[in-house]
Amino acid sequence: MTAGKIYGVGLGPGDPDLMSVRADRLLRNARHVAFFRKPGRSGQARKIVNGMIPENAVEFPMEYPVTTEIPLSDPLYNEMLSAFYEGCAAHLKSLTEQGEDVVVLCEGDPFFYGSFMHLYNRLRTKADVEVVPAITGMSGAWTATGDPITWGDDVLTVLVGTLPEDDLAQRMAHTDALVVMKIGRNIDKVKRALRTAGMYYRAWIVEFAQMPNQKVMKLSEAEDKVTPYFSIIIVHGQGRRP
Amino acid sequence: MTAGKIYGVGLGPGDPDLMSVRADRLLRNARHVAFFRKPGRSGQARKIVNGMIPENAVEFPMEYPVTTEIPLSDPLYNEMLSAFYEGCAAHLKSLTEQGEDVVVLCEGDPFFYGSFMHLYNRLRTKADVEVVPAITGMSGAWTATGDPITWGDDVLTVLVGTLPEDDLAQRMAHTDALVVMKIGRNIDKVKRALRTAGMYYRAWIVEFAQMPNQKVMKLSEAEDKVTPYFSIIIVHGQGRRP
Repeated sequence: MTAGKIYGVGLGPGDPDLMSVRADRLLRNARHVAFFRKPGRSGQARKIVNGMIPENAVEFPMEYPVTTEIPLSDPLYNEMLSAFYEGCAAHLKSLTEQGEDVVVLCEGDPFFYGSFMHLYNRLRTKADVEVVPAITGMSGAWTATGDPITWGDDVLTVLVGTLPEDDLAQRMAHTDALVVMKIGRNIDKVKRALRTAGMYYRAWIVEFAQMPNQKVMKLSEAEDKVTPYFSIIIVHGQGRRP
Repeated sequence: MTAGKIYGVGLGPGDPDLMSVRADRLLRNARHVAFFRKPGRSGQARKIVNGMIPENAVEFPMEYPVTTEIPLSDPLYNEMLSAFYEGCAAHLKSLTEQGEDVVVLCEGDPFFYGSFMHLYNRLRTKADVEVVPAITGMSGAWTATGDPITWGDDVLTVLVGTLPEDDLAQRMAHTDALVVMKIGRNIDKVKRALRTAGMYYRAWIVEFAQMPNQKVMKLSEAEDKVTPYFSIIIVHGQGRRP
């Protein structure tokens, strides 16, 4: 029997029409579909492929352990996550040993701050794994603003909202174009850092980029109209433009 | 008569299988196809869609003016490019006024260091323009290396090789993950900056990412085996990985 293959398939920002032709084909022919989700939630990645994957596909929801009570710095946090990824990887590997191919759903691009990377690193030497790149969430977001992100010699910096405020502010002050990911509960800190860096009034926030419920607003006007969790902040570069 | 529409269609890194479903559909139904190329060359974007666009599509090659003899700092350089973009934009606009839709081919993602942006800025208030985002060349490149670009809290910096050496070296020294675009004739300067920043031996170079002639090498081992012009340099982040 030939061993099966694991496909880490990037779904892009969320519009099925913006998935790659390869992702579309893999999804529509999938027999096993694995995806991450929070306990008790349907999962954003799974929602995106609604109506695309075959009805008889076997689904494998990978539910994150509940870690909200544990500080990031506690070794227990890493241990719990590590055990979780080990378990998921073992299941995927066992499927390939039965000759089955598995599609793992990845929001955005799998190798860009994705959870799939933690499975990939555990499986790469033990199974046949193919990664299908995708349009990043940030590409979806800057396209939604209707303005290019980088011109000419512009430097682009991508930051995550989980960084310390001083670090955020200093890096913001030294870039031309900026993307901030993983905002969520860090939104107030990110806003303060943007003010310190003198970028606040140039910033845009995009929620659910490229999805039917997309919202695009100046950050300074967004107030409570945008939920930070599924949002990306964009500051456009101002480089040379003949 | 209804006015036509201009589509700035991102082609992604170069593999037709990695184009978006929307891009694929627009290309296969195109009646007018515009693309940039250097004088006397067939053009990389046009090559990528070989066999995809209809045989009877009307092609509009937009040939860059020859500016190699003019320094970037000479105002004439900007004037020549500006006149060129004005002329191209005027032609596209006249097609839409005749009710025709036009697909403009864009390598990578149109809003990420793309030439299309110069047409877009001239047309956005005068015509109906839609931008179709795509997988960036850098996504294609980091996927080709087989290693994720960013983990956990990693900062990603994207630089262009045209920046001064000191600037390059300083920014390289202050990032976790790095992408260098527009390498070309700047390769030696970029290599020196990577050495100064202590990153040289962690750097990869990817030529023709996601294309049949793709090459992936450690930069320190690439020597003359890789042509810098169609290459992207990648240094992977080392962030938290449970």
